Amino acid sequence: MDFAAMKPADLRGLIRKGELTGPTTGMCNGYAQGNLVVLPKALAWDFLLFCQRNPKACPLLEVADAGERTFAQFGKGSDVATDIPRYRVYEHGELTGEYTDVSKFFEERNDLVSFLIGCSFSFESELLEAGIPVRQIEEGVNVPMYNTNIPCTPAGVFSGNMVVSMRPIPYRQVPAAAAITAGMPRVHGMPVQIGEPEAIGIHDLAHPDYGDAVTINPGETPVFWPCGVTPQNVVMHSKPEFCITHAPGHMFVTDVKNVELKY
Amino acid sequence: MDFAAMKPADLRGLIRKGELTGPTTGMCNGYAQGNLVVLPKALAWDFLLFCQRNPKACPLLEVADAGERTFAQFGKGSDVATDIPRYRVYEHGELTGEYTDVSKFFEERNDLVSFLIGCSFSFESELLEAGIPVRQIEEGVNVPMYNTNIPCTPAGVFSGNMVVSMRPIPYRQVPAAAAITAGMPRVHGMPVQIGEPEAIGIHDLAHPDYGDAVTINPGETPVFWPCGVTPQNVVMHSKPEFCITHAPGHMFVTDVKNVELKY
Repeated sequence: MDFAAMKPADLRGLIRKGELTGPTTGMCNGYAQGNLVVLPKALAWDFLLFCQRNPKACPLLEVADAGERTFAQFGKGSDVATDIPRYRVYEHGELTGEYTDVSKFFEERNDLVSFLIGCSFSFESELLEAGIPVRQIEEGVNVPMYNTNIPCTPAGVFSGNMVVSMRPIPYRQVPAAAAITAGMPRVHGMPVQIGEPEAIGIHDLAHPDYGDAVTINPGETPVFWPCGVTPQNVVMHSKPEFCITHAPGHMFVTDVKNVELKY
Repeated sequence: MDFAAMKPADLRGLIRKGELTGPTTGMCNGYAQGNLVVLPKALAWDFLLFCQRNPKACPLLEVADAGERTFAQFGKGSDVATDIPRYRVYEHGELTGEYTDVSKFFEERNDLVSFLIGCSFSFESELLEAGIPVRQIEEGVNVPMYNTNIPCTPAGVFSGNMVVSMRPIPYRQVPAAAAITAGMPRVHGMPVQIGEPEAIGIHDLAHPDYGDAVTINPGETPVFWPCGVTPQNVVMHSKPEFCITHAPGHMFVTDVKNVELKY
């Protein structure tokens, strides 16, 4: 099947039937994919506030009502509990299982609030369109991510520093890479740092804190963007009683095109 | 005193001392001004969700913790209860008083959550910079605002249709007006309608639902933007037990420049 050309609703249907359990990278070309965080209502206010206060690291696309299982704006007819290929469940901060269907948790308790958070896949597709290389795609690995010394604005039980992703950009394309991503504030927006990793507390580019190292060629500048691992990190750090996330790379594929996220 | 050239913190200081109780239009040139909505914590989740789901009509700039009286990100050292020249207090949807200081309400109850919402003053200053006329400023009246048939996405107790503001723009400048405001999604963003008011349920431009009618000259197109009256309208419609807002035109002056709201 040509997953790249598939419509999001059709892809979500396949995933729902259990016919697709792998990563969603490259699927439904042009459509935005999102990160999932599900928390009990008791923690949802603090988390929503945290995202509102840190929109670059935690660009909130949609929040479902407590107990609701659909993202009505970004995935008409979607089922949050079945339409992602692989989920992770955490209890008190410990990973307690991976699942391809988390319906039973939504049935056991009716206080779960689902958050859909924007993802850098969206701006990478714009960079590629503009002829700007995205190294980790070329090398077939995960994007390198680093802890920084940039504090997020805390909200209730949630606090921590920003995590950033890094892409090496050829000198002459750095301004365009900054401008293009600045035009997409709903999916992390412009870089937080260009060329001076020490300034944000990153001392060794060869050893990222998450993901994989990538090659930085002569004539390329490392450029750092706010990363969606930030909210996951912050949530885990607070050891919530219960939490569901997508498994890395296994995203919620939305009905909304990347280009629509510019406005 | 030259209010236009004043720094926001200094202006807020004057307001706090009761030395300035009039509208803030034209003050602290270049700095963003914001709308205030204060609600009890019990309603705050629904309202935060409503704003998240309707970012064009309700562009949330900052939300204070329950009981907190400062907007730490947009007004360092500010006091929400004293730094706006004039407030309105509503109980069960009825206006019960106008005040220049609402400290006593924050002292009587510790569950109040303050929301700061972006305002079209910010994009108007960008339009003027680009040589695009803003008619209601030229005519010294309030911007005309209209109820529409565009439904907002509901959240909990809050629902209703979008309210829009209208500015007549010379034909040749309409595309630039759309592009400039599209670049400021944190303060209402691009227009929702250009030139066809009937399409959004507006039948008589000469009689706006709020504000004042303005002249539309030959060669000008009426352009409609999402309006910050939407959240106030939606809140009032739900008749909340208690609510504080700014009085029209009497805004919270932030430390953040309009141009910073582009990113």
